[in-house]
This record gives sequence, C-alpha cells and structure tokens, in this order.
Amino acid sequence: MKFYDCATAPSPRRVRIFAAEKGIELPTVQVDLRAGEHFGEAFRAVNPTCTVPVLELDDGTSIYESVAVCRYLEAAHPEPPLMGSSPAEQGVVAMWDHRIEVEGFQAAAEMFRNTARGMQGHALPGPDPVDQIPELAERGRMRVGRFFETLEARLEGREFVTGANFTAADITALVAVDFIHRLKVEPPDSCGNVRRWHEAVSARPSATA
Amino acid sequence: MKFYDCATAPSPRRVRIFAAEKGIELPTVQVDLRAGEHFGEAFRAVNPTCTVPVLELDDGTSIYESVAVCRYLEAAHPEPPLMGSSPAEQGVVAMWDHRIEVEGFQAAAEMFRNTARGMQGHALPGPDPVDQIPELAERGRMRVGRFFETLEARLEGREFVTGANFTAADITALVAVDFIHRLKVEPPDSCGNVRRWHEAVSARPSATA
Repeated sequence: MKFYDCATAPSPRRVRIFAAEKGIELPTVQVDLRAGEHFGEAFRAVNPTCTVPVLELDDGTSIYESVAVCRYLEAAHPEPPLMGSSPAEQGVVAMWDHRIEVEGFQAAAEMFRNTARGMQGHALPGPDPVDQIPELAERGRMRVGRFFETLEARLEGREFVTGANFTAADITALVAVDFIHRLKVEPPDSCGNVRRWHEAVSARPSATA
Repeated sequence: MKFYDCATAPSPRRVRIFAAEKGIELPTVQVDLRAGEHFGEAFRAVNPTCTVPVLELDDGTSIYESVAVCRYLEAAHPEPPLMGSSPAEQGVVAMWDHRIEVEGFQAAAEMFRNTARGMQGHALPGPDPVDQIPELAERGRMRVGRFFETLEARLEGREFVTGANFTAADITALVAVDFIHRLKVEPPDSCGNVRRWHEAVSARPSATA
C-alpha cells in the first residue's frame, strides 16, 4: 500500500486525520504540488486526474477522491467507525460530509483557485487548462459565509456535527475551516458553536496529522 | 418512511433507480419544483436546503443529498450490493460515483442553472439567491465534453463503469448523461463505448424509475 500525499494541501489532510483516528499508519510518498510533480508522467500513471490524495493498493488499484479513500479505510479497518454504524447514522454522516464538502470545501476552493496567481489556468483540479472566473471567487466568498452560518446552527446543542460521535463529517469540516483560515477568512464572532467545536477537534491528536 | 421526490428532476432519479435495483418500494410524495413548493415552509421543515430527494425515516430523521440516501438504502438493504462488496470495490465505486457527480452531473448543472430563465437568481440549489454567471455555463459545457471523454475511456473493455457489476456509479452516470441530453448535448460519435453502455443500462427495468 502506498499513500500519495502533499503535507501542505487540504484534501489529503482529510485522509491523514481519518487514518490517524483509526490508528492506521500509511506508507507515504510526498508529491510536490508546487513543483508541478502531479502533472508529470509518473504521477499521471497513478492518478490521471493529477490530484492527491491517492491510495495505491498492493494489487495496483489506485483509489483517489478523498471520500473514496476514506470509504476504503472504513471498510478495511471498521473500528472505530467514522462513517456511522446504523443505516440511519451512515446516511446522516454521508449527508453532512457531502454538504460540508460542497458548501464549505468547494466554496473555499472556488475562492482560492479563482484568485491565486499560482492557479492561473488551473481554476479546477486536473491536467486540463481552466481559466479563472473572478465572479466565481466572489461567489465562493459569499458561500463560505453561509457555510459558517450552517455549521453554527448545526452545532447548536451538539458536541460534533452529527451528534455525540466524532465522524468523517467533523474531519471534512475541520479541514474546510482551516483551509478557509489560510484564505484569511475566519468564522464571524456570532459563531460561538463553531469556535467551541473547532477548539475541541483541533485538540485531538489526529488534528496534527 | 417517506420519499420526497420530483418525477422530472435528475437528482431524485438516482435514488429511484437505486431503490428499483434493490426491489425497495418507497412511499413517495411529489414535490412540485416548478411551483416552488420546495421553498415553502412545509418542505423547509423537512429539508432546510430545499432540495429533493429526501428520505424521511419513521423517527423523523431527514436524509437528503442523493449519495447519502443511497448510502442509507445500501446499509438497510444490502442485497444486491450497489456500492461494492470488498473494501477495494467500495473505494472504487465511491471514487467513480464522486467523479461522475462532480465532472458530469455538476458540470451539467452549471450549464443549466447559469442559462435557464427559470433559474435566474437560483444558480445554485437552495433557498438563498445566487446570480447566474454566463462564463460558468460555458465552462460547464466544456467540462461536459471532457466528461464524455473520461467515460468513454473508462468503459473501454468494461461492461459497466467499475467493471463487471452494475453499481451506483452507473446510476449516477446514466442520470448525468440523460440530464445532459435534456440540455441538447449528446455524446460525440467517437464515444462508441458510452453509446453501447447507455443502451444497455437504459434497457434495465430500473431505468424507467
């Protein structure tokens, strides 16, 4: 098994935290995104979409897309469950994980990829050229604000996003909030629940992964 | 259990086909999206994101987001498996389902929501106003073309998207291709694998769901 990672990128951090919570050590290869290593022929043979994370299994199967790598790890190492136990819990975790990915993570990526100089011509992940759209960066900023409101409301009276248990939805939310922080946007003062939750999940040993 | 559906919308069709493949009958309520019923107070109490599909469980839990409703149904009714059996299969199905959702379905939604007159002010799903961005519609059209190329290459030598078994990834792809057809875009002539696969999956009884 081989884990293709980039220590500074948000998406592979979702998998790193997920694995750390389960006590799984992933044999890791760093991919130098700043040097464009993900667009080189060697990495394209591993993942033609040119993104990290990738988990390469011993039979050569590549699993990429963060949620899919987590799904593999959940099935291969069921304890502790991070994607819910009962059918209803599994559904609720998948729902919040997906919402947070779209409303938080993708919104932040829209802000970042449509403004950063280094992302010119790469406004979407992948090998194909995609121009930046400044209006989309603005829309991303607006959506990030709404994401904080959604997370704040959801965390009212709940320790974690889906209730009493820490799950993949908390991991995606933590990585999204920290990614947004790097874009110099913080949860507004009105988001006391988000701040309380963020402090708690950031204090878990897995958060440094 | 109650399934909130809209017979003409693509997202809930993912769940309808998924349930039909498993032989599950869902007690269904139609939500009239054209009349704006999803923005009304009654439906907001079921799903504050104002989207279909929603599966409301007997204890009142609402599960929305198509992939999450499917995840619940997979856990509650494991046979036949539509999200993979072994951990590696589960990872590969989740990967392709996610890629097809982002690269096919979201691209088509970008085309549709950023051009359709009825979508003015609703360029994203949900209750909050979002302006249309014409450049995003153009980008969506370009991405749809790339999606067909990706699907064509993936189906070379494979009966279904992830191999010999029909899975959730085929369902998402079928719904995406049919959604794109409604936008008057067809797979190019070079996509023989896509046409062969589309004919086969459309002939399954579940496709009429």
